[in-house]
Amino acid sequence: MADGKRPSYSLREIVERFGGELVGEPTTRVSQVATLESAASHAVAFLGSDRYLPLLRITKAGAVILGSAARDATGLPRIVCGNPYAYFARLSAFLNPPSPVMTGAHSSAVVDGTASIAGDVEIGPLAVIGRGARIGSGTIVGAGCVIGDDVVIERDVRLYSNVTIYHGCRLGERVIVHAGVVIGADGFGMVMSDEEWIKIPQIGGVVIGADVEIGANTTIDRGTMDDTVIEEGVKLDNQIQIAHNVRIGAHTAIAACAGVAGSARVGRYCRIGGSSGIAGHITIADHVEVSAHTLIMKSIDRPGTYTGAYPFDANAVWRRNAAHLRHLGELAERVRALERRLATKERSGS
Amino acid sequence: MADGKRPSYSLREIVERFGGELVGEPTTRVSQVATLESAASHAVAFLGSDRYLPLLRITKAGAVILGSAARDATGLPRIVCGNPYAYFARLSAFLNPPSPVMTGAHSSAVVDGTASIAGDVEIGPLAVIGRGARIGSGTIVGAGCVIGDDVVIERDVRLYSNVTIYHGCRLGERVIVHAGVVIGADGFGMVMSDEEWIKIPQIGGVVIGADVEIGANTTIDRGTMDDTVIEEGVKLDNQIQIAHNVRIGAHTAIAACAGVAGSARVGRYCRIGGSSGIAGHITIADHVEVSAHTLIMKSIDRPGTYTGAYPFDANAVWRRNAAHLRHLGELAERVRALERRLATKERSGS
Amino acid sequence: MADGKRPSYSLREIVERFGGELVGEPTTRVSQVATLESAASHAVAFLGSDRYLPLLRITKAGAVILGSAARDATGLPRIVCGNPYAYFARLSAFLNPPSPVMTGAHSSAVVDGTASIAGDVEIGPLAVIGRGARIGSGTIVGAGCVIGDDVVIERDVRLYSNVTIYHGCRLGERVIVHAGVVIGADGFGMVMSDEEWIKIPQIGGVVIGADVEIGANTTIDRGTMDDTVIEEGVKLDNQIQIAHNVRIGAHTAIAACAGVAGSARVGRYCRIGGSSGIAGHITIADHVEVSAHTLIMKSIDRPGTYTGAYPFDANAVWRRNAAHLRHLGELAERVRALERRLATKERSGS
Repeated sequence: MADGKRPSYSLREIVERFGGELVGEPTTRVSQVATLESAASHAVAFLGSDRYLPLLRITKAGAVILGSAARDATGLPRIVCGNPYAYFARLSAFLNPPSPVMTGAHSSAVVDGTASIAGDVEIGPLAVIGRGARIGSGTIVGAGCVIGDDVVIERDVRLYSNVTIYHGCRLGERVIVHAGVVIGADGFGMVMSDEEWIKIPQIGGVVIGADVEIGANTTIDRGTMDDTVIEEGVKLDNQIQIAHNVRIGAHTAIAACAGVAGSARVGRYCRIGGSSGIAGHITIADHVEVSAHTLIMKSIDRPGTYTGAYPFDANAVWRRNAAHLRHLGELAERVRALERRLATKERSGS
Repeated sequence: MADGKRPSYSLREIVERFGGELVGEPTTRVSQVATLESAASHAVAFLGSDRYLPLLRITKAGAVILGSAARDATGLPRIVCGNPYAYFARLSAFLNPPSPVMTGAHSSAVVDGTASIAGDVEIGPLAVIGRGARIGSGTIVGAGCVIGDDVVIERDVRLYSNVTIYHGCRLGERVIVHAGVVIGADGFGMVMSDEEWIKIPQIGGVVIGADVEIGANTTIDRGTMDDTVIEEGVKLDNQIQIAHNVRIGAHTAIAACAGVAGSARVGRYCRIGGSSGIAGHITIADHVEVSAHTLIMKSIDRPGTYTGAYPFDANAVWRRNAAHLRHLGELAERVRALERRLATKERSGS
Repeated sequence: MADGKRPSYSLREIVERFGGELVGEPTTRVSQVATLESAASHAVAFLGSDRYLPLLRITKAGAVILGSAARDATGLPRIVCGNPYAYFARLSAFLNPPSPVMTGAHSSAVVDGTASIAGDVEIGPLAVIGRGARIGSGTIVGAGCVIGDDVVIERDVRLYSNVTIYHGCRLGERVIVHAGVVIGADGFGMVMSDEEWIKIPQIGGVVIGADVEIGANTTIDRGTMDDTVIEEGVKLDNQIQIAHNVRIGAHTAIAACAGVAGSARVGRYCRIGGSSGIAGHITIADHVEVSAHTLIMKSIDRPGTYTGAYPFDANAVWRRNAAHLRHLGELAERVRALERRLATKERSGS
């Protein structure tokens, strides 16, 4: 993904903009970020952990960002700072700005006449904008997106391709939505009566806060009567399922393939692992970390890390242990019996 | 999602239509359903469980639907009935009718000349209808849908946006398909020969019965030679995977992110939990309930609830227990040895 | 999915083309493959396992493919060969050739003028081809696909409908991509700083090797700086998540709903079960088999089968065992205490 004609910046310009202490030649110019392993001389790499010190010794990077503890671990031009990873992220964002908005609707897009579109919005080819939709300035709607009636999208939002947003949903400023995402489909609500399921109309909406990012093919259902809410700064990976009436607290990050069941409330600043699940109607406190492949079946009221994945093993070992697991209650009973018998024996002095 | 000009109905009109016993002022008018918590005076709420009695006391709803046991728990105008939740679902459907069919194909849709489209079908913008497809009256095909050659869709079906239906698949009456669903992609069939996978053509189809609902981004693969079958009244949540040659029995409900592997047969009236899995080539009886995050590895021949999720715990506790789980066979062996040694001791009388 | 006017072939023609020993009438003609159970007289079935011998006795197939051990298990015309399943796959592919390329771009497609499209490419209705994209001959781009800028697609690739490929990704020859797939969305990369997530630009790409097949709604993220790589011959089922910087070794097959976390490396010829997970930054050796619903939390350096699914049980049994599992460490401690006490007793001779 390299290319020849990128603008380059001297390390001096970079520290003037982003801070940090410059050690080594300040006129060194870099135009891109790279890993220690694959960096060429035009690139700046970073040292995120001591684990990568061997790579630091052999990197061909033109400069390196690192923490003060590693300040003398290389002779390369370097920027010493408190949080090299965050510094690197900001520098990378600077060197890789988002593609500019190409104002206007592509001639193949289908934009309803009653939609209210700000002046500097980009609407990609074959996108559909419904009746009464409102789209704020600086927003890009990708090719093939379908924006339902009365949807409200604030400014500087980025929708990639083939996103579907059902009627009446609302997206805050700077939200990023990746391809294939579906926001606002009906929640899974029905009731059994006379041996048949009766559908419960899902008349709530979805409200997405500012600065939320939503990964590819993730689905967020509309609420049954009230709204499903994703608070500001939440980051959702790919293929996540958020059921109706869920609320995800601000700045929580959820890894791919996780599912949050109906009416669950997840706190702020949580980190939810991949393929994990949150049961319906429970509440998770702020700052909770859930490990991958863990099902949280009841509410958690204090911060901490919670885990429930089965430890894998060679199949033959697993089979033996799993067989015993299915009789664990009996094993515990046998231990209890042993304790009683031995105590009797000990008491009898024999 | 509220709006001002909805039609309203008196409670008398409602009980005339849906039955139940009216207690309190019969001219009370309501125009929408709502939760006890968020209802305003124009809304009717329902009491689904005693758990919500505190909310009943403070609700601002204009009327409430409840069971006979809670008949006197409020002074509000109310409808007393046998199954308040089902009553509520029917009333909500009445107050929130589906959007009417806008007959005709949008000018941007691409409809093959050989397709057979009933007179009162709505085909949304940028939809594609393939050769020889047949679409029944009252059906709505959403924006961006791609309907393959020779697909048959019966009457009153609702396809939301960006749905893909591969060639030759068949959907029954009143089926609802949410955005991003893929029906009829190739099953995962191949055979290893000479260190390479040979693809097995998937020449079966998919048959979806009447009144099935399919959630967003769910995938249902076509059969290898015979059909994959979803029987009538099945309800599938979002992001479910149904593999080739599966049969799901009538009125079974499957929660989000579950997967059913190839050639499995799931019975009627089953309830399958979120992120659960059904192994290939097994059979699940009618009326089986599978808990969330549970893998069913072998056939189940009688009704009941089956579970296999790892109980989560604080990470430190989980680590300790999980470490022992990996040596459970040895622990059981040690208990057996203790039993033998103690029995010897007891027999010896010493 | 049967039809009347398929070309038919005599068994003699078939063995001339594909080998095997013909037993019985060589002029028997077949036009399609089918299962033993549903085959009619124009169809050829196969016996994949002795388990299906009862079906062999009652099949109405016109001919059967089987191994030498079952050579005399039927009087039907038959082809005896070493790997009946592989023979059958090849014959089915011959009898069910892919739909031919309909050269040209549909008038509704939006193809950027700077894209480089080979002469005999089919571009379906409402597809979008970005700036500088290159598409090789024989490739079919399905309806509603969005191919980003500078994407490179080699020859004889098949993209089904509504596929999204982000800018700069590369697909090898004969790759098959099913509907709803998203290739090249941003990896889930961010760093917490001052109580907010900072996004790390994802500037790597995705490289897909030749002969890879990708199932419906699967997502493959672009790398952070280097590429995410799917090597040749890999087969991915539906709804799989491949995170940034992952490498999947050649000819590995992954079943539906599995997830591979960031920077993991999976070996060649692995078989990864459905809904399983591979943790980030670990390495899996070649020829490893991972069972369904198993989380691989650390590297595996030797071939074999690895499992970690919780054995399901009737809910009441599961509850009891799961409760004990949460106290397994204490149980082990009690067993250790018993061992000590009994040893003391045994040593004392009392």
